[in-house]
Order: sequence, then C-alpha cells, then structure tokens
Amino acid sequence: MYTLYTSPGTAGMMVHQLLIELGAPYEMHLLDIKAGDQRKPEYLALNPNGVVPTLVIDGKPRTESSALVMLLAERHPEGGFAPAPGDAARDDYLEWMLILAHSLQPAYRLWFYPSDLGDVDHDAIKAGARAKIEKTWDRVEARLSDGRPYMLGDAVSALDFYTLMLMRWSRNMPKPATTWTHLAAFAARMKQRPSWRRLYELEGLTEWA
Amino acid sequence: MYTLYTSPGTAGMMVHQLLIELGAPYEMHLLDIKAGDQRKPEYLALNPNGVVPTLVIDGKPRTESSALVMLLAERHPEGGFAPAPGDAARDDYLEWMLILAHSLQPAYRLWFYPSDLGDVDHDAIKAGARAKIEKTWDRVEARLSDGRPYMLGDAVSALDFYTLMLMRWSRNMPKPATTWTHLAAFAARMKQRPSWRRLYELEGLTEWA
Ligand SMILES: N[C@@H](CCC(=O)N[C@@H](CS)C(=O)NCC(=O)O)C(=O)O
Ligand SMILES: N[C@@H](CCC(=O)N[C@@H](CS)C(=O)NCC(=O)O)C(=O)O
Repeated sequence: MYTLYTSPGTAGMMVHQLLIELGAPYEMHLLDIKAGDQRKPEYLALNPNGVVPTLVIDGKPRTESSALVMLLAERHPEGGFAPAPGDAARDDYLEWMLILAHSLQPAYRLWFYPSDLGDVDHDAIKAGARAKIEKTWDRVEARLSDGRPYMLGDAVSALDFYTLMLMRWSRNMPKPATTWTHLAAFAARMKQRPSWRRLYELEGLTEWA
Repeated sequence: MYTLYTSPGTAGMMVHQLLIELGAPYEMHLLDIKAGDQRKPEYLALNPNGVVPTLVIDGKPRTESSALVMLLAERHPEGGFAPAPGDAARDDYLEWMLILAHSLQPAYRLWFYPSDLGDVDHDAIKAGARAKIEKTWDRVEARLSDGRPYMLGDAVSALDFYTLMLMRWSRNMPKPATTWTHLAAFAARMKQRPSWRRLYELEGLTEWA
C-alpha cells in the first residue's frame, strides 16, 4: 500500500499515473497548494522542502518525483516500465531520466517559480528558463524523429509518463511542446491510454485532456 | 573499455573517480573548457549540449554525469557502489541521487554560469543559487548527523563520490560545505581513499586535496 500526497496537475501527476497503470493499491491525499497546504508543519514533516509529491513507501515518506517513478517502476517489474540493469535499453533509460530530471524539470521550476531565486527580474529568469526548456524539446524531438512511438522505442516506459507530464506543463507557454511535430504525435498517442483519462477524473483536471 | 571526455575538477570528476575505484579500463581525453574545446563540432557530435563529461559506453556517447555514475555502478555490481533493486538501501539511493541531480547540481550550474539564463542580474542569480545550495547542505548534514559514515550508512556508494564532488565545488563559496560539522568529517573520511589522490594526479588538481 502506497500513500500519495499530491496536488492536481503537479509533479505528482506522473507518479499517480504510474500507480494507476500498475494497478498498485494506494491512498491519495490532495493538497491545495494555492492555499499553502504544502507548508503546514504536518506536511513539512513528510517533505522538508514543502513541495508535492510525497510517496509513502513501506511507511517511509519519499520525495523527488523522478526518483518516485523510477522506484515504482522497478518495484513492479511485471509492469515492464523500466528496463532492468543489463537490458539493452537500460543506458538510454537512465540517461534520459536524468536529462529530464536535471535539465528540463528544474528549468520548469524556474519558469513557474522565478521567485525561488529571490529578488530578481522575473521576466528575465522566465526568458532564460524558456530557452532551456525549448532546447530540451529540440533534443527530444530529434530522438523521436526516427519514428519510434515511445522514448525507448516500441515499449512504453516510465520515461514516457515523465515526458508527457512535462509536455503538459508547457501548454500555456509561448511555444507549447506540441509545436514540435513528433512530440505532438507522441502526446496524442500517450493520451489514448485509459490511465490518462482516469488520472484526469481522479485529480479533477480538464485542460489539455 | 570506456572513453571519458572530461575536464579537470568538473562534473566528470565523480565519473573518473568511479572508473578508478572500479579498476575499469578507460581512456581519457581532457578538454580545455576555458579554451572552448567543448563547443568544437567534433565534441558537439558526442555531447549536443557542449558540456563535460561524456562517457563512451559500448561505442555510444552518453551524457549526464549523474546517469553516468549510476550506469557505471550497476554495470560493475562487484564494486558494490549501488544497492540493487530490491535491496533495503535502494530507495534511499535513488531518492538521494535525484535530490543531488535535481536540486543541488542545477543550483551549482546557476552559481557558476548565471549567464545560462541570459541577460539577467548575475549577482542576484548567484545569491538565489547559493541559498538553494546551502538549503540542500542543511538536509545532507541532517542525514549524516546520526553518525553514519556514508550517505547510505556503513557502505560507500556512488552517492558519496557525488556528494564529495559537489562539496568540493563549494570550496571558494561564501559558506563552503565543510562549514557543516558532519559534512566536514565526511569529506575528510572520503579524501583518505587512494582513488582521490589518484584522481588529483591524473587530472592535475591541487586545490582542496
Ligand atoms: N523536485 C521536486 C519538485 C516538486 C515541485 O516543485 N512541486 C511543485 C508543484 S509541480 C510544488 O510543490 N509547488 C508548491 C510550492 O513550491 O510551494 C519533485 O520533482 O518532486
Ligand atoms: N548536466 C551535465 C552538466 C555538465 C556541466 O555543466 N559541465 C560543466 C563543467 S562542470 C561544463 O561543461 N562547462 C562548460 C560549458 O558549459 O561551456 C552533467 O551533469 O553532465
């Protein structure tokens, strides 16, 4: 049994989708981040950074959405969402997981929360973040341009749920990720999964369905 | 046989140290990043972001230093530098790898390369990056304060080489990581490893030996 603390449409989304895909038993607590639930003492005890998501695994609260999907995928190998160590696709899997976690997701954080950097020119920060985000979409587009349906080839992996979530975050940006041809086709393909519709219902989402 | 493209003291340092620890056969090419070697077309063909390190594995160039140490550790399980999936320390390993890769290393990038964000107030960016870095050191210090010698407990892992490298990067910052008591003891312990001295020789390093 897992316990997921998240908020609709946030970084918890891919963790939630993976739980649904795996059919793993979980309990969910939705936080209202506009109201500041993430900064309440009882939540900070679970997640000292005061961000969502947190996933309680074997009674221990765990953070970092990218680590959570990697953990879930490997704890449930029957789902086939992570190539095992030694598998031919393993190097691609780890390299791209870390490209998304290290180069793309932190740039989104700056786009959405430029005040993380304190008293700075928010528009300038956002412009810089946007350039980094678009540069990474160029790389993903190049990868998908050989016609592969998913990031690792023919099989869906945790990487695809990560990519889809990050694409969704760009929907109101000047250049949404769906501007790139292969990325758009990828999103359309991924959105056909029943887990996507279920996620929308459970998190009460409507945009970019 | 691995081929490592790196530059002394950079993010390639932990990859290099792990290669030494594992006794894995490798060839090394040192780039002069001050001279702009990383932006030459032949290097961009290996690493489209124009950064070091790149590790050629099975003939394929791989990027993202955090992914590279994870890959090396699991490709050489005999080294014992990564708990395998299913191991009790696995969740800690992945969570902390991603904390370092996602929250700490990108903040260093902003500290050292504020111009990544374009035409912004560099001092303001650096102040914001510094606050993020120090917040993460607080968390690592809290983790080490139970007296554990290494990040995962009694056994050295890839995480420790990562932590040590990131600590070194703070040496000329206003509040070096060694300001924190347990972090200082951790660094002193890690620096006793023969691989650290060898790394210094091979990369021609002197500071923070
Ligand atoms: N590194 C964290 C970042 C999580 C994060 O930034 N979450 C955002 C929502 S996507 C959040 O909690 N925002 C509320 C806040 O920062 O106060 C992860 O990937 O889990
Ligand atoms: N995400 C990359 C970042 C690497 C990176 O920023 N490398 C720096 C040195 S530590 C670099 O190559 N700097 C030269 C430049 O950006 O031109 C990784 O971890 O491998």
